[in-house]
Amino acid sequence: MINGVDAAALTAVLDGRWAHIRQTVRDELGAEFVTVPGESGADARERVTRLIRELPTDVGVASAFPVAYGGSADPGGSTVAAEMLGQVDLSLMVKAGVQWGLFGGAVVALGTKHHHDRYLRDIISADLMGCFAMTETGHGSDVQQLRTTCTYDPSSGNFVLHTPHEAARKDYIGNAAKDGRMAVVFAQLITGGERYGVHAWMVPIRDEDGNPMPGITIGDDGPKAGLLGVDNGRLSFDHVTVPRDMLLDRYGQVAADGTYTSGIANDTRRFFTMLGTLVRGRVTVGAAASAATRNALTIAVRYGDARRQFTRPGDDREVVLNDYLAHQRKLLPALARTYAYVFAQEELAVTMGEVQTSTGPVDEHRQRELESRAAGLKAVQTWHATSTIQMCRQACGGAGYLAENRLPGLKADTDVFTTFEGDNTVLLQLVAKGLLTGYRDAFGSLDGWGRATFVAEQVREMVLERTAARSLIQRLVSAVPGRDEEVAVTDRGWHLSVFEDREKHLLESVIRRLRKGAATKKDRPFDIFNDVQDHVLSTATAHIDRITLEAFVAGIDRTTDPAARALLAKLCDLYALTTIEKDKAWFLEHGRLTPARSKAITAVVNDLLRELRPHMRTLVDAFAIPDEWLNAAILREEPARQDTMAKEDDAIRQS
Amino acid sequence: MINGVDAAALTAVLDGRWAHIRQTVRDELGAEFVTVPGESGADARERVTRLIRELPTDVGVASAFPVAYGGSADPGGSTVAAEMLGQVDLSLMVKAGVQWGLFGGAVVALGTKHHHDRYLRDIISADLMGCFAMTETGHGSDVQQLRTTCTYDPSSGNFVLHTPHEAARKDYIGNAAKDGRMAVVFAQLITGGERYGVHAWMVPIRDEDGNPMPGITIGDDGPKAGLLGVDNGRLSFDHVTVPRDMLLDRYGQVAADGTYTSGIANDTRRFFTMLGTLVRGRVTVGAAASAATRNALTIAVRYGDARRQFTRPGDDREVVLNDYLAHQRKLLPALARTYAYVFAQEELAVTMGEVQTSTGPVDEHRQRELESRAAGLKAVQTWHATSTIQMCRQACGGAGYLAENRLPGLKADTDVFTTFEGDNTVLLQLVAKGLLTGYRDAFGSLDGWGRATFVAEQVREMVLERTAARSLIQRLVSAVPGRDEEVAVTDRGWHLSVFEDREKHLLESVIRRLRKGAATKKDRPFDIFNDVQDHVLSTATAHIDRITLEAFVAGIDRTTDPAARALLAKLCDLYALTTIEKDKAWFLEHGRLTPARSKAITAVVNDLLRELRPHMRTLVDAFAIPDEWLNAAILREEPARQDTMAKEDDAIRQS
Repeated sequence: MINGVDAAALTAVLDGRWAHIRQTVRDELGAEFVTVPGESGADARERVTRLIRELPTDVGVASAFPVAYGGSADPGGSTVAAEMLGQVDLSLMVKAGVQWGLFGGAVVALGTKHHHDRYLRDIISADLMGCFAMTETGHGSDVQQLRTTCTYDPSSGNFVLHTPHEAARKDYIGNAAKDGRMAVVFAQLITGGERYGVHAWMVPIRDEDGNPMPGITIGDDGPKAGLLGVDNGRLSFDHVTVPRDMLLDRYGQVAADGTYTSGIANDTRRFFTMLGTLVRGRVTVGAAASAATRNALTIAVRYGDARRQFTRPGDDREVVLNDYLAHQRKLLPALARTYAYVFAQEELAVTMGEVQTSTGPVDEHRQRELESRAAGLKAVQTWHATSTIQMCRQACGGAGYLAENRLPGLKADTDVFTTFEGDNTVLLQLVAKGLLTGYRDAFGSLDGWGRATFVAEQVREMVLERTAARSLIQRLVSAVPGRDEEVAVTDRGWHLSVFEDREKHLLESVIRRLRKGAATKKDRPFDIFNDVQDHVLSTATAHIDRITLEAFVAGIDRTTDPAARALLAKLCDLYALTTIEKDKAWFLEHGRLTPARSKAITAVVNDLLRELRPHMRTLVDAFAIPDEWLNAAILREEPARQDTMAKEDDAIRQS
Repeated sequence: MINGVDAAALTAVLDGRWAHIRQTVRDELGAEFVTVPGESGADARERVTRLIRELPTDVGVASAFPVAYGGSADPGGSTVAAEMLGQVDLSLMVKAGVQWGLFGGAVVALGTKHHHDRYLRDIISADLMGCFAMTETGHGSDVQQLRTTCTYDPSSGNFVLHTPHEAARKDYIGNAAKDGRMAVVFAQLITGGERYGVHAWMVPIRDEDGNPMPGITIGDDGPKAGLLGVDNGRLSFDHVTVPRDMLLDRYGQVAADGTYTSGIANDTRRFFTMLGTLVRGRVTVGAAASAATRNALTIAVRYGDARRQFTRPGDDREVVLNDYLAHQRKLLPALARTYAYVFAQEELAVTMGEVQTSTGPVDEHRQRELESRAAGLKAVQTWHATSTIQMCRQACGGAGYLAENRLPGLKADTDVFTTFEGDNTVLLQLVAKGLLTGYRDAFGSLDGWGRATFVAEQVREMVLERTAARSLIQRLVSAVPGRDEEVAVTDRGWHLSVFEDREKHLLESVIRRLRKGAATKKDRPFDIFNDVQDHVLSTATAHIDRITLEAFVAGIDRTTDPAARALLAKLCDLYALTTIEKDKAWFLEHGRLTPARSKAITAVVNDLLRELRPHMRTLVDAFAIPDEWLNAAILREEPARQDTMAKEDDAIRQS
């Protein structure tokens, strides 16, 4: 029995390293910044455009920019700022993300000093509004295959940017339909008749009066499911002249005579190096998805604590929803997972900050690991948002369907997160590929490996390096007695070891199947990988599950308040056991759980729900979301309604 | 290898008994009836109100009304008509459902001849628009506890209808905010100082000019997630006078002197008898959810057949999405389940028609079974719609997020289906209760049973009676050899027997736990049921899974075209095996699957996906949804775009 947990003590743990940014955003952004349920698309665009310019600079949206231009060189902090904006209004967050993250971030990462000097101050002040024009109608996932071309003409000293056909138009581009004056446009660089792969240029798209520049056609993507405040649009270029110095030339340069130079000889490697510098977008989207999930859970848990339905035998008042096991089964595991992601996300932001502000030589392995985790945590957090917000909507019944109760907007706005900044399925493949690449690094190629046991030993090292609180986790794992059946299912070391074991086994068996496929499907190379695609995706998920659990464990270890620590430990039990429960069949198929132990897990999960029930409200209060940000009519009205009804009912009974 | 499947042959099977209604709706409702993506709420309301009046009568929306008033006394047909409307515009379907299903249906079922004579013709012609005012802000699920009162005053010969507090206002009422002139209002009947439970009255709510009648306050629920064309609102009554003859008095009558009479003495039983006559609403919502799911799957499968991304080794053109295993894993199991529900839904509509048009004495057991199946199939079909449409949206990437591609509307409109006409979780409990009641009928009560083996034998009879094609199913089950391990995992008899066995075992173990709880938790009666709530919900799901599989099997048995039959059999394999796969852990825990056989199922599912891949397009074409109803820009544009791109790419390669 856990008593006396102070929500503020939990908040301090959740707020973590960037508590100052979180608190500043809470203090500075009042009701006037909060999303307006049910407003028209035109009103939403107008409002969000206005608010972008009114955002106080100290809320951290410009944190990632170099100090020399007014930023604070704190990329991790900038993702936290964006995350907090997501709790206020997701359109505002996405618009800010386009302006300062994607557009500004690309200028910083892909441009050189003269671009920075010329543009960064105006970008930070939002005097220069811009777009990030990568995705084309025909290519969203496979952006290496973009069809837009940018061809250098040495006779004029300019590039010519061109859209060859409709599938090559830039599409879904934020800030394009209305506000953008300039765009970072990605296209195939051609010079001297040779193609050098995708590069980026700064291209003015509108003049001072807001009219499209010559040769540029701008379309509007029109009504969307959500994010009504973001003006997504389409850009087509008809032989548009782009001066040579508008090439963002950090990774590839074109001399006046058309000679191409680059520090990275291979086109593919150069392109993925460029993409790698833009990882912050994914880190931000995952963070914002989780922030919106916290809003939805706060609304549903608080409503479930006030709302009553059906009478309990021997009790006059009806039962509050949160007392029902089925309701707890919906809300609490989602809440536990949401906590887990807060810790995993912070660790990711910290790692990103270290990698991106490091002044030493580029650590390629670490960069790739960062990209892989960013991709994986983006995928799982956005899917978690989609399913959890949907569940919260249903947990609030008909009230959850009304715009005034905020949940429809949260659902609709976050919906696209599962497919933008990388389609989640494609991203999980990237994660798995990262793990396989680890193998490849160590062993040269997928062929020609040594003994299986040797491989297996190396895997442990490969997969498990660089996780949070490595020594603590090693200690917990080592303390687990030999036979699983003797260990309590709530033993943390056991959780850690089964998560680790599942990942390792999945990865090894994927590799075994790939090797077998390589030997037997030589004439069908596509099938070698495609036939194991579901297995690959499970491997990636297991990997992200593990790093998330380890981050949670590290987070608990940092918690000093004893009551908060005890509650977090229970919640971590619930996260670990419901994750195992979801994939129980795998553990049973592979002899990792006996049927009896598997059944015991379900019983223990139900016990945990009962233990955590009294703390549901504390757990969401700890998210510290201001009531005016939640902006849900039912939270204001339902408690009063229930009180009035109870009084009326009493009066009837006494009459 | 299945060849030469004719989509039309499949359509004939899917269209089934009410093919004539389906074809009439397809023929008569052109583009002018189709939902307009991205329109404003005001425009949507205006358009849908207009279209309701313009609907041709022969599309079957009035089928359920008695022949004497212009209907065709075909309640099953009316749910099919509503289902087809759902493919055109879900707001139109819901508005029609409110007018002719809920409002008109309540007048038919709960009223007597003088109500019918006075109102039915105007209701059918939509000259009298009405509401079904049951739900209150404070009571949506537990409608027996409504707080609105309607008190008879013998001195005036009128009732007085009253809303005692805000939680008792009628809420989410379709047609209330704008169009309704009258409402069927549910309230607690009080006469002579006694309460007789919930009854219904016909209450004029607006005058000829559209102004609220005296004492009635009408509010607007405002913007919602979807169904923008439906004017949901709130009604409050301040001591409103209602003439005595406006009581819908089929099940309870109040004489001029205030004397209450009813053919059903018990208030609760009377109320649930009244509710039971209104089962058509649930049958319709489940049907419409599946219809919308078919729209979404058609869009996603056709897009996935045109859309390409990433190149295949050794191939110039990129790979179509539907060739990826991960994409097939998303779309095909959902497609198989959608087919299964078409068969289960038709069987339900047929049963409802038989029960509701039977002229003999009421078969209470059959009525209760109908209610249970309607509840269960409504729950599973609406959840399936929510998850499948969401998946289809993601399968179309960014394009799926644009209103012009229809998926956002399908998602938002169907979203509320999971909680209206009964919250799905509550409905599944109803299903389980129906199964338990079966026990109670046979054995008197939950206590005092005989030997466990006797109970177990009776269960088989209790649970399995009255399913589709009983003898066929019995034959298939009997043909399964004794030892599971010797049976192919694609053996239909094996599927049927494991579905049946799981349901039976879950039900038996729920009962065992309830009995144990009754013995040990005497002081905590609420906990007896609450502690097994998750188990109860699994039992209900297993029951619905089984009746769905049996309906699928019966549907295949009716199919005469050999190629169509072979394809449906493969699809049924996929439905059965993915259903088992989803609950694999249960089968493993209970020794129904060995680990080896469990793994084999995953492999066989992947084989089935490969086999079904060439038929994906045929399977959705068989839904026979007119292109103008699909109304998705990507279906018109993507194939042409891909062709143009391929030609341009060829030209570049050749240059």
